[in-house]
Amino acid sequence: MNGADHLCATLLANGVDTCFANPGTSEMHFVAALDRETRMRCVLGLFEGVVTGAADGYARMADKPAATLLHLGPGLANGLANLHNARRAFTPMVNVVGEHASYHLQYDAPLTSDIESLARPMSHWVKRSGGAASVGADAAEAVRAARQGQGRIATLILPADAAWGELPADTAAVVAAAPDAPAPISPESVRAAAQALRSGQPAMMMLGGLALRERPLAVAGRIARATGVKLVTETSNRRAERGATRTPVDRFPYPLGAALEKIQGIKQLVLVGARDPVAFFAYPGKPSLLAPADCARTLLAHPDQDLTQALEWLADELGIAPDAPGLQAPAPQTELPVQGRLDSAAVGRLLAARLPEHAIVCDESITQGREFPALSQASAPHDYLQLTGGSIGIGLPLATGAAVACPGRKVIALQADGSAMYTAQALWTQARENLDCLTIILANRSYAILHGEMKSMGVTELGRNARRMLDLDEPALDWVHLARGMGVEAVRTDTVQAFAQALAAGLARQGPFLIEAVI
Amino acid sequence: MNGADHLCATLLANGVDTCFANPGTSEMHFVAALDRETRMRCVLGLFEGVVTGAADGYARMADKPAATLLHLGPGLANGLANLHNARRAFTPMVNVVGEHASYHLQYDAPLTSDIESLARPMSHWVKRSGGAASVGADAAEAVRAARQGQGRIATLILPADAAWGELPADTAAVVAAAPDAPAPISPESVRAAAQALRSGQPAMMMLGGLALRERPLAVAGRIARATGVKLVTETSNRRAERGATRTPVDRFPYPLGAALEKIQGIKQLVLVGARDPVAFFAYPGKPSLLAPADCARTLLAHPDQDLTQALEWLADELGIAPDAPGLQAPAPQTELPVQGRLDSAAVGRLLAARLPEHAIVCDESITQGREFPALSQASAPHDYLQLTGGSIGIGLPLATGAAVACPGRKVIALQADGSAMYTAQALWTQARENLDCLTIILANRSYAILHGEMKSMGVTELGRNARRMLDLDEPALDWVHLARGMGVEAVRTDTVQAFAQALAAGLARQGPFLIEAVI
Repeated sequence: MNGADHLCATLLANGVDTCFANPGTSEMHFVAALDRETRMRCVLGLFEGVVTGAADGYARMADKPAATLLHLGPGLANGLANLHNARRAFTPMVNVVGEHASYHLQYDAPLTSDIESLARPMSHWVKRSGGAASVGADAAEAVRAARQGQGRIATLILPADAAWGELPADTAAVVAAAPDAPAPISPESVRAAAQALRSGQPAMMMLGGLALRERPLAVAGRIARATGVKLVTETSNRRAERGATRTPVDRFPYPLGAALEKIQGIKQLVLVGARDPVAFFAYPGKPSLLAPADCARTLLAHPDQDLTQALEWLADELGIAPDAPGLQAPAPQTELPVQGRLDSAAVGRLLAARLPEHAIVCDESITQGREFPALSQASAPHDYLQLTGGSIGIGLPLATGAAVACPGRKVIALQADGSAMYTAQALWTQARENLDCLTIILANRSYAILHGEMKSMGVTELGRNARRMLDLDEPALDWVHLARGMGVEAVRTDTVQAFAQALAAGLARQGPFLIEAVI
Repeated sequence: MNGADHLCATLLANGVDTCFANPGTSEMHFVAALDRETRMRCVLGLFEGVVTGAADGYARMADKPAATLLHLGPGLANGLANLHNARRAFTPMVNVVGEHASYHLQYDAPLTSDIESLARPMSHWVKRSGGAASVGADAAEAVRAARQGQGRIATLILPADAAWGELPADTAAVVAAAPDAPAPISPESVRAAAQALRSGQPAMMMLGGLALRERPLAVAGRIARATGVKLVTETSNRRAERGATRTPVDRFPYPLGAALEKIQGIKQLVLVGARDPVAFFAYPGKPSLLAPADCARTLLAHPDQDLTQALEWLADELGIAPDAPGLQAPAPQTELPVQGRLDSAAVGRLLAARLPEHAIVCDESITQGREFPALSQASAPHDYLQLTGGSIGIGLPLATGAAVACPGRKVIALQADGSAMYTAQALWTQARENLDCLTIILANRSYAILHGEMKSMGVTELGRNARRMLDLDEPALDWVHLARGMGVEAVRTDTVQAFAQALAAGLARQGPFLIEAVI
């Protein structure tokens, strides 16, 4: 048994049995160890952004970490953007980053780089394994770190000689100690939150992280029904359990103007696993903090605390019975578009109406899918996964990982075209693994969000340079060809009828399929 | 005039007139400034790995830096792998990385990250602009840093408020001081190198960096002819001027066994802008340093010195006249394959024979193009650009940037399929800009280099997990579809005849074209 075998055994002993990978030469001993261990499922991504994004989607749905296998500093670098998103989601993840043999580093071979410096900004925990003898303990520590609180990004740097170094054949896997219990809920916070909601002032309760699962949401719904507090989720959420049988909660808007309007007049803001809302970007003369200056903030519980307990205690404190009525989802949209030129609203309406039960929706629709969260409050119960860190290129990998975690559930990527181009290689993994992923590309052929930003700067007419940087036409991307190039069947639609048909076909089949919705 | 305008004017005043870009919201004021300045050519990449790889290819051919425009930490992160390659090539480059407004950072908005930590491993120079008033001086400093020695990676972090801050309308662009002159050649080094070559012992002269241009190569050729020293280039080179009229130089091999064999018995190693050769990766029981223990090393000149002068002085010291004969390229291959199943040797031979004069060959063929450098020594004069840092995914972006720098010259990417998938988005930029790029995908449908590594570890039969991580079949990538999806015409060939026809067609046309060579 070598260090790589021990690493592999330790991951398995700690419940990490899925490894999203793109290996290189320095990881060959780990690859050989994975090859000897058939209980580990290895899923190849043809680019590391697919690997880390898929590990994120997997963990959001499986509620446990996957491992990733990345090749040295540059392989990690390619995965960093989606690690950034995962870090913002507090997704549990264990990255194994291969590294040169420790004695080889001094020669500064071409692929040498400062892996720690690259890893730290997007990891909560970083460690370089000291050698074969410690790699099991290091891996157990990484898993424990990944399981802290709602989840953490743990990055273990694996020198090649730690992987190939020999250990006694009977070396046992190291089992990680259980992570610390969540910090206890503070009775003072519960009382303070209750006082805020009883104040009679306009109040908003912002929910984030694990508060968006069915059970805590139901409690929040009872609190809202009883007190009149407005419920909102944070703008970008790791996973929300939504749909007709769940408590409906509005999403706090992304655009600065809409966000300010939403929170205008609120005097009491109660945060439940959510952060005091801040502007995604700064704008000249506009506030960074979005809540009004005279709005009191009360932190009921931070994201690593037991949010269900916090909400239950708050309901108790407010004297709301466990069987008190909660919020009901709105009536479903019955009037559906049937014909005409396709637009994003029609896509959203049709998808919301047709969503299969327990579907998993990965939304990276950016500007074009902003209607969908509202439209889908009355949809069949589903999970809703968002871009959490603002770094585009997560949608297709996220769907890939969610499908690996949840065989038997339909995964739907509602995906803008510009961001899809960042990590389109995920389609190949969907084909390779025959994942039940339906991708809807909202093809507006521009970075529409940036057109909006230019307009709000007062630039009404773009010159050549700006157009050349914000438009994705000339040539238009052909998603049917792109998908087929990676082994995924696809159709293009630009009318409501054709889209409705394609959607029905895509939902009826099993396995990957892509609809290019030209809007 | 705002800071962004001043930045733009300063770049132009310092000869930086091409900007490879993928902007985001925090860069909108810089985009607006670029839009007001028609002298700047902005080239969009649909992923940042394309942006930085293209800036590398541009600078290798233009011998001056391009600018890149990247969106915050994640945008930089996406470009890091090719920055790593550019750093290893010592390519001059000025990265402008957008950042939140300085006062907004404290709120840790979703896209916030530690940009310096991300930038440093792949940059020689990193600075955060202090504000609108200093951004011109900062940009001039960045250009100066990029022009140090043979070239450097300079990364300027541009807070949004430094971009939008107002300056007096008549603020002049800041002109960078000339970079320091190259360090003078040491007469002692010249004498020591001459002594090594006169020793009568088996000697090798390893050339790197700017020593691979026509003029210094000619001097090296005269020295080799007169002294019998073996000439080699480093394994991975930024740009080599090669072909029938140039001095033929072997490439130092990549595979460890071949490298050790090549240098076996050498007692005198003279380094000219090259580093003492080290193994790309460590292997158990194998050396990291490749030259034999009893081989003396003599550094004639380091890469930042004037390598032409160093070689001329060495020739003088050795008493070799400027008109002494040099090395001649070997006779061209006249026997070309005409039919049969296509293989990489046939691709290499046909391409070497048909290479148009002054073509630029970007070689990321990894295992499948290893014959090409030897085969093309007798080709028409051409430039030859390699993967310098071992981080795959540079070939198509490199070709893109080289074509932007050199209109009127045919650019040929000799490209492995696995690495092409990393940054295939470059094809779209080739279509958008109508660049004269011919891409030859060597489609072996596997990470063949890793199969080789597994074999040399003694693993003769791969299990499911290893096969699933090293093979790119199931499904096979369809490069004709992928290329068409990005607006590039393409054909697939799997016979010698068909490839020869496609090659002729691809060379005859102008504009982007792709040949999938199934081997």
